[in-house]
Amino acid sequence: MPKGGTVAELGEFGLIRAVTENRRQPPTTLLGPGDDAAVVEAADGRVVASTDVLVEGVHFRLDWSTPEQVGRKAVAVNLADIAAMGAFPTSVLVGLACPAETDAGLVKRITEGMWAEASGAGAGLVGGDVVQADQLVLSITALGDLRGRPPVTRSGARPGDIVAVHGRLGWAAAGLAVLHRGFRSPVTVANAQRYPEPDYAAGPAAAVAGATAMIDVSDGLLADLGHIAEQSEVGIDVRTDLLEVSRRLVDVGTALGADPLHWVLTGGEDHALAAAFPPFADLPEGWRRIGAVTMPDSGLTVDGKPYAGETGWEHWRRPQ
Amino acid sequence: MPKGGTVAELGEFGLIRAVTENRRQPPTTLLGPGDDAAVVEAADGRVVASTDVLVEGVHFRLDWSTPEQVGRKAVAVNLADIAAMGAFPTSVLVGLACPAETDAGLVKRITEGMWAEASGAGAGLVGGDVVQADQLVLSITALGDLRGRPPVTRSGARPGDIVAVHGRLGWAAAGLAVLHRGFRSPVTVANAQRYPEPDYAAGPAAAVAGATAMIDVSDGLLADLGHIAEQSEVGIDVRTDLLEVSRRLVDVGTALGADPLHWVLTGGEDHALAAAFPPFADLPEGWRRIGAVTMPDSGLTVDGKPYAGETGWEHWRRPQ
Repeated sequence: MPKGGTVAELGEFGLIRAVTENRRQPPTTLLGPGDDAAVVEAADGRVVASTDVLVEGVHFRLDWSTPEQVGRKAVAVNLADIAAMGAFPTSVLVGLACPAETDAGLVKRITEGMWAEASGAGAGLVGGDVVQADQLVLSITALGDLRGRPPVTRSGARPGDIVAVHGRLGWAAAGLAVLHRGFRSPVTVANAQRYPEPDYAAGPAAAVAGATAMIDVSDGLLADLGHIAEQSEVGIDVRTDLLEVSRRLVDVGTALGADPLHWVLTGGEDHALAAAFPPFADLPEGWRRIGAVTMPDSGLTVDGKPYAGETGWEHWRRPQ
Repeated sequence: MPKGGTVAELGEFGLIRAVTENRRQPPTTLLGPGDDAAVVEAADGRVVASTDVLVEGVHFRLDWSTPEQVGRKAVAVNLADIAAMGAFPTSVLVGLACPAETDAGLVKRITEGMWAEASGAGAGLVGGDVVQADQLVLSITALGDLRGRPPVTRSGARPGDIVAVHGRLGWAAAGLAVLHRGFRSPVTVANAQRYPEPDYAAGPAAAVAGATAMIDVSDGLLADLGHIAEQSEVGIDVRTDLLEVSRRLVDVGTALGADPLHWVLTGGEDHALAAAFPPFADLPEGWRRIGAVTMPDSGLTVDGKPYAGETGWEHWRRPQ
């Protein structure tokens, strides 16, 4: 029996109180938790909205990650979607399902992580629901504000555009490989799997710089560039000599007998951003050119050739 | 093996396509499913947002309800929260977790019901996520627009206000009793448990009429009026002679040896609306006076006396 009691003992209302009391909401939260619904500022007359569901044993493991890291990850993957539209996060709603005998302290620690990630991005945790289920499931909805700019969709890339990325690639996949072998180090690599650290400001910065298409790299670089290529009806060529393969990934690849470039090209869950920019755009800080948008009939290529391996992760088809 | 294939066979992207293709979005959907996030109009510069999670075996049973009814219910309970703020629903986001071997046809039928309910309320299904889990879990987020009016919260009721309700009370509880005994009739009573039929327009109509506080009756009339009493720091007295106890509920009560008034006072899941109005307000169509707001020290009473039984349903403390 957990010392702080179970979720069932604390009860729905007790738990919601514990999670939401004494929290500082950002100014965009016009009405926070505790009513039938929250009210959030949407100053520009539109709201950007995205939902992701994370399931214990599928998207996270509590023997690999702390509850706080799980909470951070659940919020980060959603806020990254908001940033990928060129928008600023404003708020987060949390649906949490768990067994009745779950330690209430565990749930509180998960929500600590959620609050930390949301606050860091300028967003408030404005509402939610806590219900009983056989398994721990976290369902997050993030809202954001475009501040007067059009959204950057996946469909606007044009042949001749620069393809660029912001953030690390392949680290979460390397971390997964490390953790799967039962290792806990290198810690920076393992942590990359435990929770992503997106730079949310990089999305709006790309929008300001004129990005024609953008995507959150969640399934893997090639898979996600494939989404842009398909929805923009263009080809995309990635140049491996422009990809950063960190010394750390090379070391881990050597130790585990894996190809670090494959992680960079196909590893998901880093939540970097990938975007297309007009040919002569000045890339904003932190964005690195990695390729070019090509003609539609060229398809998705790496150094001019189709990629031989699996291009990424599709949820229902993953090997494990 | 289901004829139409399993969710795993169809794959994440195939399933999302099947669910979202060829759907008519309302004009408020500026960017629908298929990108990192949706963009929804929030014309008045604010957005109302609410999340509810429904778990198979806890909130619905597929041996009691059709998949379409489950989808309708999941959306309806969320849209009712939007209406209870006095807002108009604009959009719905869906998180769906289910086992890999789930019949893809079942998921499509659930989303048919979601679309039907959302469309009927003027809202679009604008985004979502489909992931693997041990159990079917539906997580819905609904967004709405206040159209320039302040939200009607739970905290504005004042002593002397009229207390009124809109919609049926006790029917879902009676339906639960019927279904638990293994009966399937009366169908209207059983269906009240399978899916609520909120009149979403009744919420904004109450706001226009000056409602001082409002709540979606999801936990039970007394429990939810208790939330208004607590958050408004008032007492509330319900007059049983003003409550409608339908002949149908009396018949079912007689057959099952249960008190139909108890269902009306404490049954959840009908998603009626309860509200306080100023003393001389003209109640909008369909709203019925059932009591009055009293002084804070009076507490929550029925015919002037504290209610003897359980006042409603708290998720983690339900008996079953």
